[in-house]
Amino acid sequence: MEIVSELLSGDRRALARLISMVENLEPGAKKALSELYSYTGNAHVIGITGPPGSGKSTVVDKLTLELLDEGKSVGIIAVDPTSPFTGGALLGDRVRMNEVSLDEDVFIRSMGTRGHLGGLATKTRDVIKILDAFGKDFILVETVGAGQSEVEVVKAAHTTIIVEVPGLGDDIQAIKAGILEIGDIFIVNKADRDGADNTARELDTMLGMNQEEKDWEPPILKTVAKEGKNIDELNDAISSHLSHLKETGGFEELKKKQIRDEFLDIVREKIYSYTMERTAEGKIDEIVENVMNSEIDPYSAAEDFLEPLEEDRKD
Amino acid sequence: MEIVSELLSGDRRALARLISMVENLEPGAKKALSELYSYTGNAHVIGITGPPGSGKSTVVDKLTLELLDEGKSVGIIAVDPTSPFTGGALLGDRVRMNEVSLDEDVFIRSMGTRGHLGGLATKTRDVIKILDAFGKDFILVETVGAGQSEVEVVKAAHTTIIVEVPGLGDDIQAIKAGILEIGDIFIVNKADRDGADNTARELDTMLGMNQEEKDWEPPILKTVAKEGKNIDELNDAISSHLSHLKETGGFEELKKKQIRDEFLDIVREKIYSYTMERTAEGKIDEIVENVMNSEIDPYSAAEDFLEPLEEDRKD
Repeated sequence: MEIVSELLSGDRRALARLISMVENLEPGAKKALSELYSYTGNAHVIGITGPPGSGKSTVVDKLTLELLDEGKSVGIIAVDPTSPFTGGALLGDRVRMNEVSLDEDVFIRSMGTRGHLGGLATKTRDVIKILDAFGKDFILVETVGAGQSEVEVVKAAHTTIIVEVPGLGDDIQAIKAGILEIGDIFIVNKADRDGADNTARELDTMLGMNQEEKDWEPPILKTVAKEGKNIDELNDAISSHLSHLKETGGFEELKKKQIRDEFLDIVREKIYSYTMERTAEGKIDEIVENVMNSEIDPYSAAEDFLEPLEEDRKD
Repeated sequence: MEIVSELLSGDRRALARLISMVENLEPGAKKALSELYSYTGNAHVIGITGPPGSGKSTVVDKLTLELLDEGKSVGIIAVDPTSPFTGGALLGDRVRMNEVSLDEDVFIRSMGTRGHLGGLATKTRDVIKILDAFGKDFILVETVGAGQSEVEVVKAAHTTIIVEVPGLGDDIQAIKAGILEIGDIFIVNKADRDGADNTARELDTMLGMNQEEKDWEPPILKTVAKEGKNIDELNDAISSHLSHLKETGGFEELKKKQIRDEFLDIVREKIYSYTMERTAEGKIDEIVENVMNSEIDPYSAAEDFLEPLEEDRKD
């Protein structure tokens, strides 16, 4: 496809257009993704999550400046599962305008939930692919900490950073076990505030209680992102984590897991379209009518609906 | 199936056992659900959601006592999407022991996420079905307000109650548009606290801004559930809402929508098992390996995987 060759040649407008195609589920988007797939796999994908007010975006911005200084190119995807907005419309984008977004080597995109959560994770992964094939060295995926969602979204990251802040009271306790497990690097941001040492210590204790044996011990860094303080340390920790992954074979293992997740998600999405098409044909209405009239129960109806698959399975 | 006839004859142990079968995805669970389906459709299903600390559980308990007084039977499903626990192990159950759970006409079950969120919504719906077929007049589904999850869980309710409290600061503003839309009845609980009138007024304003034209205007009630205050009013509002639904044809419409949602969820779950079975067969590993080696991209692999369905579609 033309748009794919344009993208691969470094055309920023092709990049933006293809991302929009993915977001709007335009026909051709999946074909393009399929074509560019073999050009992916070179970017270091970093997930950054944390509660609102923890200064995630500032961490992302300062880290971006640090990476740009090193001559790297950066793609930023700001995912907000609580926002229905997608595209460039989020406040976050405007706030960032001065800081990093005018740089040629940065590409920022905001994504919200248009559709369901699962769809958002898939789309985020697709946008990562596009930025990766485009040639970005680093892709930062920032997502607000809102339960299930951040786990879904960072599934595609190689390195996951959890941002905390001192003084949110019971918040450390409220971190779910699942979140602790996905963190490769922990940050206590706004560390110039009272209680930063306490928060770091609590995090350390909780990580210590995590029974699972790990060959990577997640560092806990204290940053003041607003002033750029210790962002270089963060950058080092990120490099160390990647090196660690590559040296231990963890990278291959992670990639395998991610491909599996992705494949299964694509399967789910395809079933979704299959269903949508049958909806358009009026087939689903017919089934609903039959269940309403007690002619069939929904479990048996689903079996009939998926009979081709079931048949195949019995072979 | 024997367990189904036992359930229909009013055997409480069969009830508990069948619910466990559903929760543990035991073989036979779906067959049982399929068999008992034609006995469902008689219960009034009520969803109750709200932020932690709003007193949801107390509202549910007091409402239950009110309904029992009227000679009705009640099933309670307490869904906590943030808890990995399922069964009778939640604190909520123990707290309730004295209040309502010793009553023969009440059945309480706690459900947490064992597996993903989508699965929880399906299981909740299945448990509703079981309680419905068992003959419960009212089924109260209580869920903690945690974003996407409460919307998913209350999808199966005929009447949805949103519980708020005064004095949570910015919380009213934080109510997501999606939550306002699903509320049929709003409660400002702990209304003996300062700011209750304010909270009610704010809710009223926000509901007024909701552009969508509705033939049912959600009432906003002020309760002090702990003292049982205005719970009778709540009970009246629930009856009014049901009458309204039945008079306007909204009930049929809602049922149709719910059957559709349910059918599609069952289809998704079935695909999930299809995939799980292929995983067991080693088929998925093979695909992942091929993608890892760049022999195929995941989009094309998904197409191959679902070929039987695709074929059928082209007929």
